[in-house]
Amino acid sequence: MSPGPTRILILGGGFGGVYTALTLERLLRHDLRRGTVEIALVNRENYIVFQPMLPEVISGSIGLVDTISPIRRLCPNTNLYTRPIEKIDIQRKHIRTAAGLGTRPCELEYDHLVIALGNVTNLADLPGLAEHALPFKYLGDALTLRNRVIQTLEEAAIEPDPQVRRALLTFVVAGGGFSGVEVVAELNDFVRAVARNFRHLNTGDIRVILVHAGELIFPELPRSLAEYAQLLLSKRGVEVRLRTRLAGSTAEAALLEGGERIATRTLVSTVSSAPNPLVAVLPVKKERGRIVVDGHLAVPEYPGVWAIGDCAFVVDGGSGEPCPPTAQHAIRQARCLAENLVATLRGAPKTRFAFTALGKMASLGHRSAVGEIFGVQVSGFLAWWLWRTIYLMKLPGLDRKIRVATDWTLDLILPPDIVQLATEKPLAIRREHFEPNETIFREGDLGNSLYIILDGEVEITRDVPGQSDVPLARLGRGECFGEMGLVRQMPRSATVRTVTRVNVLAMDHYTFQALFAYLPPLRLFFEQLIQLRSN
Amino acid sequence: MSPGPTRILILGGGFGGVYTALTLERLLRHDLRRGTVEIALVNRENYIVFQPMLPEVISGSIGLVDTISPIRRLCPNTNLYTRPIEKIDIQRKHIRTAAGLGTRPCELEYDHLVIALGNVTNLADLPGLAEHALPFKYLGDALTLRNRVIQTLEEAAIEPDPQVRRALLTFVVAGGGFSGVEVVAELNDFVRAVARNFRHLNTGDIRVILVHAGELIFPELPRSLAEYAQLLLSKRGVEVRLRTRLAGSTAEAALLEGGERIATRTLVSTVSSAPNPLVAVLPVKKERGRIVVDGHLAVPEYPGVWAIGDCAFVVDGGSGEPCPPTAQHAIRQARCLAENLVATLRGAPKTRFAFTALGKMASLGHRSAVGEIFGVQVSGFLAWWLWRTIYLMKLPGLDRKIRVATDWTLDLILPPDIVQLATEKPLAIRREHFEPNETIFREGDLGNSLYIILDGEVEITRDVPGQSDVPLARLGRGECFGEMGLVRQMPRSATVRTVTRVNVLAMDHYTFQALFAYLPPLRLFFEQLIQLRSN
Repeated sequence: MSPGPTRILILGGGFGGVYTALTLERLLRHDLRRGTVEIALVNRENYIVFQPMLPEVISGSIGLVDTISPIRRLCPNTNLYTRPIEKIDIQRKHIRTAAGLGTRPCELEYDHLVIALGNVTNLADLPGLAEHALPFKYLGDALTLRNRVIQTLEEAAIEPDPQVRRALLTFVVAGGGFSGVEVVAELNDFVRAVARNFRHLNTGDIRVILVHAGELIFPELPRSLAEYAQLLLSKRGVEVRLRTRLAGSTAEAALLEGGERIATRTLVSTVSSAPNPLVAVLPVKKERGRIVVDGHLAVPEYPGVWAIGDCAFVVDGGSGEPCPPTAQHAIRQARCLAENLVATLRGAPKTRFAFTALGKMASLGHRSAVGEIFGVQVSGFLAWWLWRTIYLMKLPGLDRKIRVATDWTLDLILPPDIVQLATEKPLAIRREHFEPNETIFREGDLGNSLYIILDGEVEITRDVPGQSDVPLARLGRGECFGEMGLVRQMPRSATVRTVTRVNVLAMDHYTFQALFAYLPPLRLFFEQLIQLRSN
Repeated sequence: MSPGPTRILILGGGFGGVYTALTLERLLRHDLRRGTVEIALVNRENYIVFQPMLPEVISGSIGLVDTISPIRRLCPNTNLYTRPIEKIDIQRKHIRTAAGLGTRPCELEYDHLVIALGNVTNLADLPGLAEHALPFKYLGDALTLRNRVIQTLEEAAIEPDPQVRRALLTFVVAGGGFSGVEVVAELNDFVRAVARNFRHLNTGDIRVILVHAGELIFPELPRSLAEYAQLLLSKRGVEVRLRTRLAGSTAEAALLEGGERIATRTLVSTVSSAPNPLVAVLPVKKERGRIVVDGHLAVPEYPGVWAIGDCAFVVDGGSGEPCPPTAQHAIRQARCLAENLVATLRGAPKTRFAFTALGKMASLGHRSAVGEIFGVQVSGFLAWWLWRTIYLMKLPGLDRKIRVATDWTLDLILPPDIVQLATEKPLAIRREHFEPNETIFREGDLGNSLYIILDGEVEITRDVPGQSDVPLARLGRGECFGEMGLVRQMPRSATVRTVTRVNVLAMDHYTFQALFAYLPPLRLFFEQLIQLRSN
């Protein structure tokens, strides 16, 4: 029996995964041609996201797809599986992907496994964040944020209530690290530039707020650069709130520790990341949720298993310090891993991973940036020019380089775009979070959702002649409200306010109708409920 | 009491609506400045779609947002309401928009009303089309089609079953008019170009099929041009099926009249359009669903109400024929309407609408086109060059002209893009249609949906040792299946096939869990059901 090819399986299509595949393709060129080695890569999307440029998607100064690069073009000799991963079985050496358009799952076996799954956004720690805050990690997030910003401006332009208008024109970003600062800078530039296209909008009403827990933004950078950046943001109209922590969110406000509420419809959270759930359940040694690897980037307990990037705990061979989760490190680790993997296949000696970061840069929007390169601090227009040049060189693929360079050139002469690309369909069923004493809906509002209380208590009131807000009932866990407006298509006949903190499940009209009409137990339940409450 | 300004309200942001606003802004410049006139426009989106370029979004040869132009920039002195319209009250002279981010509806009163609502895509006429066919009218449709095509290629590249792979690589477009032919040409070019980036994909397996009811495609064009176009499409690998009508669709096939099934996962229907529901309920005289207007484009029964474009039945003053629903006509009608509206305000004489189309052109992808301009027939590369030049000139806004010209230039040198922008979240609850004797799921499949039968009958079978497909039960209207796999997270324990035609409501795992956990009557119902069926 002749053995089949050696199967190398890479999980994750970020910098770590893609650069591992790229390097392996180069080192194993002859083996791939002879068919003695096979490389496969599994990733949810068929592209790699170039994260440093993601904030520019907000303003549209980079074309929507130009921050991402197709993995198939970058790694033409790798078998790409565009599927979510469901399970990693490290004992039996195989993984299972979710079903695609068909319904059959797909199992892949391996001889060598490279885990490069990064981490995930975690908004579940604070109340209301998962429901109402916007993350900023994937291309879809950038697009969603852009659309939200345009929608709030559209709404503000026709909103008669000054208090609601002010909330619509308030934008809050939580987290003063690289990601948060780049987002707030780009967001601020974009909002202020496009607001001029809206009649009846006073740009003086716009508030862009950065909330940061520390004493100074940019903890990653030297103090003088951070101070420079902070001053620049303030000059451009960003309110920097230091020593301030986010405590939660509702649909209409960002909640701060200490009880302050900032009325807003746009809260971006860049603070929390968590280990990938697939990594979290792996039976290997971990440190702060990251897979502990040896100096050669191999997982000691399981020969043939390797890990790199943000999901791996890598101690630098030079400094003895753990590596920070940056793209630079992921790329260097990927190259080292690929070399060590090939050395293992050939029985050659492996090398220890050691790398000193070349520098750090952050864009501050509007033609300025800050950074430290080979120990030299740069700021302002020169830094911005360097930032663009360096990232353009790092951007994988020549066609992407040309497209981004063209985008940037056009961006110098053309105004920012204000079209809203509403591609998302809102979920038919969503969770919503409310703090105590908030209004869920008012008598007279249009009824477009049915609510089911998951926990907490609400009070129902109604206006009667000569008296407003007469209490009618209190409802708790498992009870519903809002069904009457939905069934009869009329404005809300009562006001609902929260008594305690409340989590609800809100179901839209379409979903409710579909379920109500066809699920007999549900129809019976609601018919009885409506009968009861109508009397 | 001094009267307020004269309020002109335009409904719809297509060519008719936007060009009416543009012309009114020019003619009423002084009145707008003095505040004696106000122009408002209500549209669901804040942009106008330049439809002739939409097919190029499929291949990405035009940037995603470059086919659309922001209405605020085009009409800076018009109040734009970016809201869906809920109701037109032509008696009381006001309209109501849907609630935006807030929950309060918005009512707008008018002195003059311009109805330019176009028509809507109607997939409800044939069974299964609304559920499984893709329309092609809006920007979102073009984006959805592009993503679907890339997804089917991704799936085909890793699909082991040759029959499923062939279905994934089959693309069907219904309708041989302008829209259908342009879509099939662009789709064909795109699929064949990008398939080369997929390993293990044989481009010979790709089928692109155009289904057309008539004797010859392009009924709008002279016979010789239509024949030229048909030959060209065939040469490029498109199968043109004439005298063939679509009869319906399932998730896995296009159904033709006569009973033939084409196994496919991508069916685009460009055939059916229907009157806008808002227009359908208006109490005015209509002809084929379109509002009948007089020679001045006014609605005779209601002074101050005007209608143009695809939703209006306009008889041309020159030829005496009804105007076809084209952008050229909508733009000319908009100008005439604006002039007549201003003449009405000033008590001046109005002009009759008369216009002879300058010509017709259609792109055939890959640098060729056909057309007839001022009676002269053109085809091939020259026609394509003319097509691009004419549309570039017609594209509203200088920034868009520059962006599209740049896109086209880059497209000449760069390969087409294959990144899949999965921005859509699938609906939590969707309808699905099945023909008789189809498999809904098989024993051993991954269970990811619960099904509720809306109408029709299904049979449940199971394999037992030594015997396959042993019938277990028949289920009908209002009954559920698939709940066990969902609750227990195991592969399907039985096979479900349709006996008759079946429509179901499919609910995904997330939605089911949410409802199951929190709605007491539903939990009880399913617990009893599972208990019953487990025994």
